[in-house]
Amino acid sequence: MAKQFVCSYDHPIVTTKQGKLRGFETDGTYVFQGIKYADSKRFQMPSDPASWEGVKDAHSYGFVSPMLDRETAVGEIAVPHRYWPKDENCQYLNIWSQSLDENAKKPVMVWLHGGGFSAGSSIEQVAYEGENLSRFGDVVVVTINHRLNILGYLDLSPYSKKYANSGNAGNADLVAALKWIHENIAGFGGDPENVTIFGQSGGGGKVYTLMQTPAADGLFQKAIVMSGVGDGMSIPANADSRPLVDGMLKELGLTAAEIEKLETLPYEALAEAYKKVSPAIREAGGYVGCAPIPNEFYAGDPREVGFTEHAKTIPTVVGTVIAEFGGFAPGLPKKHELTRQQELEILKPKFGTDTEKLIALFEAAFPGKPITDLLVLDGFSREPSKDFCRKKAVSSQSAVYNYLFTYEFPIDDGRAAWHCSDIPFFFHNTDLVPICNIPGVSDQLEDRMAASFVNFARTGVPGCPSLPVWEPCKPDDIATMIFDRECRVVHNLDDELQKAIYPYAQRPDFAQKKEKKDGEQEVVILH
Amino acid sequence: MAKQFVCSYDHPIVTTKQGKLRGFETDGTYVFQGIKYADSKRFQMPSDPASWEGVKDAHSYGFVSPMLDRETAVGEIAVPHRYWPKDENCQYLNIWSQSLDENAKKPVMVWLHGGGFSAGSSIEQVAYEGENLSRFGDVVVVTINHRLNILGYLDLSPYSKKYANSGNAGNADLVAALKWIHENIAGFGGDPENVTIFGQSGGGGKVYTLMQTPAADGLFQKAIVMSGVGDGMSIPANADSRPLVDGMLKELGLTAAEIEKLETLPYEALAEAYKKVSPAIREAGGYVGCAPIPNEFYAGDPREVGFTEHAKTIPTVVGTVIAEFGGFAPGLPKKHELTRQQELEILKPKFGTDTEKLIALFEAAFPGKPITDLLVLDGFSREPSKDFCRKKAVSSQSAVYNYLFTYEFPIDDGRAAWHCSDIPFFFHNTDLVPICNIPGVSDQLEDRMAASFVNFARTGVPGCPSLPVWEPCKPDDIATMIFDRECRVVHNLDDELQKAIYPYAQRPDFAQKKEKKDGEQEVVILH
Repeated sequence: MAKQFVCSYDHPIVTTKQGKLRGFETDGTYVFQGIKYADSKRFQMPSDPASWEGVKDAHSYGFVSPMLDRETAVGEIAVPHRYWPKDENCQYLNIWSQSLDENAKKPVMVWLHGGGFSAGSSIEQVAYEGENLSRFGDVVVVTINHRLNILGYLDLSPYSKKYANSGNAGNADLVAALKWIHENIAGFGGDPENVTIFGQSGGGGKVYTLMQTPAADGLFQKAIVMSGVGDGMSIPANADSRPLVDGMLKELGLTAAEIEKLETLPYEALAEAYKKVSPAIREAGGYVGCAPIPNEFYAGDPREVGFTEHAKTIPTVVGTVIAEFGGFAPGLPKKHELTRQQELEILKPKFGTDTEKLIALFEAAFPGKPITDLLVLDGFSREPSKDFCRKKAVSSQSAVYNYLFTYEFPIDDGRAAWHCSDIPFFFHNTDLVPICNIPGVSDQLEDRMAASFVNFARTGVPGCPSLPVWEPCKPDDIATMIFDRECRVVHNLDDELQKAIYPYAQRPDFAQKKEKKDGEQEVVILH
Repeated sequence: MAKQFVCSYDHPIVTTKQGKLRGFETDGTYVFQGIKYADSKRFQMPSDPASWEGVKDAHSYGFVSPMLDRETAVGEIAVPHRYWPKDENCQYLNIWSQSLDENAKKPVMVWLHGGGFSAGSSIEQVAYEGENLSRFGDVVVVTINHRLNILGYLDLSPYSKKYANSGNAGNADLVAALKWIHENIAGFGGDPENVTIFGQSGGGGKVYTLMQTPAADGLFQKAIVMSGVGDGMSIPANADSRPLVDGMLKELGLTAAEIEKLETLPYEALAEAYKKVSPAIREAGGYVGCAPIPNEFYAGDPREVGFTEHAKTIPTVVGTVIAEFGGFAPGLPKKHELTRQQELEILKPKFGTDTEKLIALFEAAFPGKPITDLLVLDGFSREPSKDFCRKKAVSSQSAVYNYLFTYEFPIDDGRAAWHCSDIPFFFHNTDLVPICNIPGVSDQLEDRMAASFVNFARTGVPGCPSLPVWEPCKPDDIATMIFDRECRVVHNLDDELQKAIYPYAQRPDFAQKKEKKDGEQEVVILH
């Protein structure tokens, strides 16, 4: 039977600080798309959005931030995307809710999208759609667009006071969004005093950088960092942006005195200059922007500078998936039918004399998994995530929980979970992402995973009755919830394995995004 | 329960003329995305695509054609869109099928997207997704990208022989796609001798221009033109492209002798020149391209030059929706609760002394519909579509059928069907487009509409057992299937009404696509 659609002249309408908005209702879920939560001038802090008379329709997702690279569609089966019109004025958010009663006080879950701090949007992945999670968990789901890359994270502070925080403008947008949510979410059935921020990859980075941002204190109460912690991703406190910006100015034929011209040049010109100048600076370890820079606004990476007193009070979930960036490689033909001998022949060319040791450690950690998954095992995010948990667990003011998603997807004769592949499960959106689905298995798993996050948002404790008890981490005891066909909690699962895999593991290439050439099709599999 | 996903190393794989492709299977539907059916150089006829060794994955939709205007997202609730990465090398198609048995010989339905001949793509609207229609109708659904606007329809033939058909390159791509389908579709379970082309708006225009294209003869057997016929849209046979092209050359600082430089200039530069030069020429009634030009390749608009002998053999369905472009305006508050007096007060300022006559004609044609729907009644597509049917019906070699979609959507206290709003129903995709849905009503209607097209594709006769018999048109007797809560067939429904509404009716503005300005939100409804 069709879902009931409702959108009349006087329903559903919510009054915000700026004016009245009309959304729509589909089978009891209220949807509001493309709400402007702030305005901004380039490189400036965001300001309050304009007010209006009458009723505005919130019936289309808003502009997303311009991005540095030409968009290409590759591997959509693994991570289905939505591309969208772009504009610098991109401070829009979207809301899904089961109630518009201002006394309903439902938990609020605010999604911060990934794509580093350079790409992506609130709706970039099909799996970011909020309807299912809102309905399943009876929570208010909010997703946010904000300024990215050189529009959101280019430090011009050495050139003028007016650019004091241009290096964190993108995160300042997020704070503005959280402020808008704090002031307005009750009208959408949400509890402004119970807001959980969650994000994956760069979105996870946004979560923990906001934990370290005093302006956001009190605007959220809980945090979930999904596959967002890694080494070498943070900008140090003493970073000097001048080589980068001077190089861009030179490229654009401008002097430092003409810095304000960067405010009005077309974005494309800035982007070209940035892409020309930044690779050499990145190579030399210098500042290339595109991530928050520590200053008065942002305290810095908590693993390096310590958690702020406020961050210590935030219950946090931190997790990763088993293969992360290694998981984008095609799987191994007939991998479940290989003999031990065949497996060894496949592993030895890569792991040499470490092969036997790695196998022993892998089998101890993941009994029943094919040992050839060592080829794709994440060695980039897991250990730093545990490091985050250990350091967070030192404070007794709030708990920190860890998870690992080890599901094998039904493609290529079985493929280990790749970066982003957990999102449809936590969003209860596997019906939108076909590759997830094994009837009776994937649906049960998404119930457990989505319920774990919903219960964390509601109570501060993750998990659900059909799972073993999810214990918090201690500084010397990382308790990991393993999400898979069978879920289990394991203590200190893989310290030795991670140490051993580190030299071999696949790392993301932050420097360059591969472009699909004209006419190029997907990976060729040679039989 | 989750849909079963299957994609192993050796399944599903289809061998095409160029090489092997791997798609995926979801609950028994086979899906292949982004198949390259041709290559091309700018302004040239398409050529066969390259071959390859091994197996390529068809797991991502392909590039779509670059477009003239900056994309903006407005009114997504009425017509949900998918935007997508763009490239000139955009000859890709997508396939959904229930079988990969080369002897299955399922009817093939090939979708030609709308957006004039200037915009859109095979996946632009969410409603174009082929999975549901394939499953519901047990048909093979194919959707196609091709070159658009000045890349597909800019006549440079006066400047060089090598550009003899540049004015129809976009349609030549479509012919190449039909040729690819003819040669390869059996491997995807389809019957190469039973191909129905269908399209809406510009896609409907593509359908009837292909009917008049000798190179496509024998590549399809049936045709459906949805909201695609209108006056003033066709380029006449004697059109002179030189004022436009000379103007563009001048704008680009080139002489006619340098015409080949148009092949290598960035698309954006060409587009800017075109947008600068074309409005004045359009105003003066001159050639502005962006539609097929009559020449040896294309015989011309059948309503003007007559149907080709081959076109006469093609069974055809031609239809429209009740409000078309008028339907994009917001509905009328409480329109079903107005008194007759209130309705008259609303109608008279627009229709003056014609009001009573229009009401009488409207009530005779559409008993039970609110007479205020006169405000939005289509007066652009309906009469030309009937003209098409009359002229087509003159030949006895194949039948022509007419429909009118008059469903009232559950928004704004009831809104008459707008341009594009029938697509989710004919595609059996109302579950993907929330605004369609009234439980028990919309699902029944989409069953009937999708079945009507599927049965036409299968047998050449549209309709289904739960509908009254859908009679073909005669030159002096237009039989119209009205698709609504209650479906009925009416003869000569609205000739007088259409004559009377003509001076008042809303027409599409082909000259300019409205852009959403920075930060602009949806229509403001004043209470």
